[in-house]
Amino acid sequence: MGHRASPQHSDPRDVPVETVFAALADPVRLAIVRQLAGSEDWSRACGSFDVPVGKAGLSHHFTVLREAGLVEQRDEGARRVNRLRRDEVERHFPGLWRLALATGD
Amino acid sequence: MGHRASPQHSDPRDVPVETVFAALADPVRLAIVRQLAGSEDWSRACGSFDVPVGKAGLSHHFTVLREAGLVEQRDEGARRVNRLRRDEVERHFPGLWRLALATGD
Repeated sequence: MGHRASPQHSDPRDVPVETVFAALADPVRLAIVRQLAGSEDWSRACGSFDVPVGKAGLSHHFTVLREAGLVEQRDEGARRVNRLRRDEVERHFPGLWRLALATGD
Repeated sequence: MGHRASPQHSDPRDVPVETVFAALADPVRLAIVRQLAGSEDWSRACGSFDVPVGKAGLSHHFTVLREAGLVEQRDEGARRVNRLRRDEVERHFPGLWRLALATGD
């Protein structure tokens, strides 16, 4: 495995709703979440998202999403792959995904 | 009436969900919204909320809430009074109030 520390996660049950709202208040993070929602669990590496930010910015956005309990990450060799914590978050914040994933179109 | 300009409002239908999330990502604004939810429409003047911010900070928070389409304000003489835009917001962002008003206790 890589030299990076394993990502630290928050349990959605321990996250205040204002932290969840803050995580989703950013268009880049909302785009990541929407792209993840349309992908199989663990199929998306961090670099695979179509968002207008560089590597450092991207890393920050994933940290915010992870700390808000919305995204889970794990390292597979050199790749860090992702899944949306769909069920856990829905249980604790019912209706959140419906709001966040609606594109309004 | 006072010398202030009338407050400008956004229609909740024109507000992107990330703007709504940003408005509710702050504990002071969440407290204002929760206190408003427990009050009759137009019964609360801006100075009547139990939040730990001064007058300028309070004014900023109300502007953010108004621009996110969540709160409506009108001037009654020297008082600026408020109501939560409960129905309009619920129509456009179903489930938002349930998430925002749950205190988690």
